[in-house]
Amino acid sequence: MCKLKSSILSVGTELLFGQIVNTNTVFLSRELNLLGIDVMSHHTVGDNPKRLAEMIRQTFAECDIILTTGGLGPTQDDLTKEIVCETMNDTLVLHEATKKWLEEYFQKLGRKMTENNYKQAYFPSRALIFQNDVGTAPGFALEENGKTIICMPGPPREMKHMYEQHIKPFLMEKTGAVIYYKMLRMFGIGEAQLETDLLDLINGQTDPTIATYAKEGECCVRVTSKRDTLEEAAQAVADMIKKVEEKVGQYIFSYNDEEYQEVVGQKLIKQGISLSSAESCTGGMFAQSLTDVSGISAVFDRALVTYSNRAKVEELGVKQETLDRFGAVSEETAVEMAEGLKKVSGSRLCISVTGIAGPDGGTEEKPVGLVYICVILDDKKRCTRNQIRNLGRAWNRNYAKLLMFDAVNRLIEGKE
Amino acid sequence: MCKLKSSILSVGTELLFGQIVNTNTVFLSRELNLLGIDVMSHHTVGDNPKRLAEMIRQTFAECDIILTTGGLGPTQDDLTKEIVCETMNDTLVLHEATKKWLEEYFQKLGRKMTENNYKQAYFPSRALIFQNDVGTAPGFALEENGKTIICMPGPPREMKHMYEQHIKPFLMEKTGAVIYYKMLRMFGIGEAQLETDLLDLINGQTDPTIATYAKEGECCVRVTSKRDTLEEAAQAVADMIKKVEEKVGQYIFSYNDEEYQEVVGQKLIKQGISLSSAESCTGGMFAQSLTDVSGISAVFDRALVTYSNRAKVEELGVKQETLDRFGAVSEETAVEMAEGLKKVSGSRLCISVTGIAGPDGGTEEKPVGLVYICVILDDKKRCTRNQIRNLGRAWNRNYAKLLMFDAVNRLIEGKE
Repeated sequence: MCKLKSSILSVGTELLFGQIVNTNTVFLSRELNLLGIDVMSHHTVGDNPKRLAEMIRQTFAECDIILTTGGLGPTQDDLTKEIVCETMNDTLVLHEATKKWLEEYFQKLGRKMTENNYKQAYFPSRALIFQNDVGTAPGFALEENGKTIICMPGPPREMKHMYEQHIKPFLMEKTGAVIYYKMLRMFGIGEAQLETDLLDLINGQTDPTIATYAKEGECCVRVTSKRDTLEEAAQAVADMIKKVEEKVGQYIFSYNDEEYQEVVGQKLIKQGISLSSAESCTGGMFAQSLTDVSGISAVFDRALVTYSNRAKVEELGVKQETLDRFGAVSEETAVEMAEGLKKVSGSRLCISVTGIAGPDGGTEEKPVGLVYICVILDDKKRCTRNQIRNLGRAWNRNYAKLLMFDAVNRLIEGKE
Repeated sequence: MCKLKSSILSVGTELLFGQIVNTNTVFLSRELNLLGIDVMSHHTVGDNPKRLAEMIRQTFAECDIILTTGGLGPTQDDLTKEIVCETMNDTLVLHEATKKWLEEYFQKLGRKMTENNYKQAYFPSRALIFQNDVGTAPGFALEENGKTIICMPGPPREMKHMYEQHIKPFLMEKTGAVIYYKMLRMFGIGEAQLETDLLDLINGQTDPTIATYAKEGECCVRVTSKRDTLEEAAQAVADMIKKVEEKVGQYIFSYNDEEYQEVVGQKLIKQGISLSSAESCTGGMFAQSLTDVSGISAVFDRALVTYSNRAKVEELGVKQETLDRFGAVSEETAVEMAEGLKKVSGSRLCISVTGIAGPDGGTEEKPVGLVYICVILDDKKRCTRNQIRNLGRAWNRNYAKLLMFDAVNRLIEGKE
C-alpha cells in the first residue's frame, strides 16, 4: 500500500487580509495524517482565477490529492468550480438533483431563490457530488489521470460536517484501510515525562501509533489503528490503551477527548453529589467552568468567591487570627474556607482554593504559583499544597482550576 | 507610489501535521495590509530543502517580498538560511557580533553552548540582520534583483516581537510612508448596523480607511492613516475618530483595543470604587473576568455565585415569596440579589445577574437568553431586562457577562 500525497488549498481573499484564522487547514491536516495520507503543503490564494489555476497545476506536480476549501458560493467571486473544470478538462453541467434540493431548501425557508443561487447547482460533468447538510453549497470530487481534487465549502462548520459525512469515507476507500482512534486526556504529568514513560510503546509500534500533545496544562495521547476492518482496529486500540494505562493510567481523566469539567460534572450529576466552591485566586473560574456543563444546576449549589480577607471572614467564618498568623495563602486558611463553606451550604462536596496568581504578591517563602486546595466529601477531607510552575497569571489561574477538578475527581473516585 | 506585492511562507513540518494553528500568517497578513502591502498568497512547506527552494522561486515570479517564518533554529532540520542563500545567490558567513551575543547569552543562562548553536551565528553575506530580543534565532532581510526575502523565527512570540521592533520599520521605509492606526472596541451594536451607520464614512474616504470586525458579541473599528509623517497620520486618525464618535460614540468602550474587563477594572481601581457581584446564570464569569485584571484585589471584594434558589435566599436574603411569585429570572429577584449583596458586602458597587443560559429551561414567556441585570452604585440603582439572541449556552453566558461590564461602565461614567 503506497502512501498518498496531498495538499490543502484554501481559496478566499478574506484569508489574505488576515480577517480570519485558517482553522480548516489545521483540521484537515490532522485528519489526513490520521488516515495515513501525507500532507506536503498548504496554500492560500485569493479569489483570482489565474493564480488558482496555476496553483492547482503546480501542486499536482507532486501530489495525488488536492483538497480545496472556499469559493463554492453563489456570487461572482466564487470561481473554484470553473477553475477546477479548466484544469481537470471538464465542463460545468446542471445537476438536476441539486437544483431540486436547492429549490426545496429555499421554499422551506420562505425565501426567494435568486438567479445566483442556481449557480450552486452546476458541477463538473464527471464529478461525484457531496451533499451539504448544513448549508447551500454542495462539495464534490473530480478525478483525472490518477489525480483527485476534492472541493469543499469554506465555512468551518459546513466543511467539517461534509468531511465527516462524505469526504472521510471517500478517502478511507481510497487508502483501502479503516482507521479507528481514541484521544485520552491526562492531567498531572508533563509532556516530556509522558513521552519518556511511553517511549517503549511509541518506538516499538507501527500500528497502533501513539502521539502525544500538550494542551494548556494538560496532555493528550492519541492512539490510532489502521486495519482492514473496524473491529480489528478498535480491538488494537483497546489493547494498546491497556498498555498505556499500565504506565500512566493514574493521570487519565477522559478516554473520549472531554474537558475536565465535563467529566467531573457528569459524575457529580450521575451520583447526585451536591457541591459548592470557595474560591480566592481563581476568582470564580472553577464555578464558571463547572457551570459550562449543561444540567449542572441539579447538583451545583453556590460558589463564594471570597477575594478579600474580610469576605473570607464574613462569608466563610475563617478566623481573623488564622489569616494574621498563617496568611490568606496557607493550608490553615484553605481548610477553614472549606469547612466554613460546608457549614453555610450544606453541600456534600465542598472545595476551597487560595493561592498567589501573580504577577506580584510572591515572596521567597510563598512564591507566585503557590496554591492550597482543600476538598471535603461527606466525612473525607484532603488538603494539598501545590507549587505551579509560574508561567504568568492566566496560566497559573487555569492550572489552579485544573488542580481543583483533579482533586474532586480523585476524591469521588476514591483514588489516592 | 506603486503597491508592493508580498507572500507569506511558513516553514515547519509540525504545521503540516496539524499540530499547531498557524497564527503567524494571520498576524502578518493583517500587518502587511495595514502597511498598504498586498498579500498575494500564503504557503506552508515542511523541512524539505527542494520544495522550499521551488516555492521561493515560484513565489518571486509575482511577488516583490517574501516573508518566511520558521526553520532558523540550531538543528539539522532548520534549513531556511541555506536555501535562501541558494535561491538568492549568496553564501553563509559567520556574523561575529551575533556569535559574541550568543556566547554571552548562554553564559548568562549558565548553559553550555553546543556546536549546533553556532549555526545560528551564520548568515548570508549580504544580509541585514535583525536581533532577536526574546530568543536565540536572529532574523534577516536579503535583497537580490529588486526582490526581498525577510526571514523570521517560527515561535509566534519571537516573530511578533521581531516584527514590531525591526521588520515593520524596515517595511515602512520600503513603502515610503508612515502608518498610524487606532482600534476602537464597541459593545451594544451589531456589525451589520455598525457598517450601515458608518457607510458614508467608509465609502467616502480613501485615507484614513475604516474597517469593521465582529468579535464574540463585540464589534471593532480600525481607523488607519498612511501619510508622510507620523504627526499627520495621527492627526488624520484623530479627526476621523471624531466623526465615528458622532455616529456611534455611545457604543465605544476602548480606543486602544482593550478588553472590557480591563477598561472597567482600571476605572474602578483608579476611582477606588469597591465592588462585589451576585451571579446566577453566568456562574462566576463576571468575577473570573474581572480578576484577570492584575491589581483588582485593591477594589474587588467578593462574588456570590448563587446558582440554586436556596443559595439566593441564604446568601443574599432574596425572599422565598419573590422567587415563588416572580421566578428566579425576574426583575424582582435581580433587584433583591443586588440589594442583598449590598447589605452583606458593603461594597459601593454591587451588580447582580439572573437569566436563562440554555440550552433548556426556556418558556414562551421567558425564552432562553433572557437576562436581568441590576447594578447599584452608592445611591444609584439601575435594573435592565435584556433579551440575548440565543446562539447557544456559551455565547449567551459570554454576552451576559459583557452586558454586566457595560452596565457597570455606563453607571460609573454617568451615561445611559
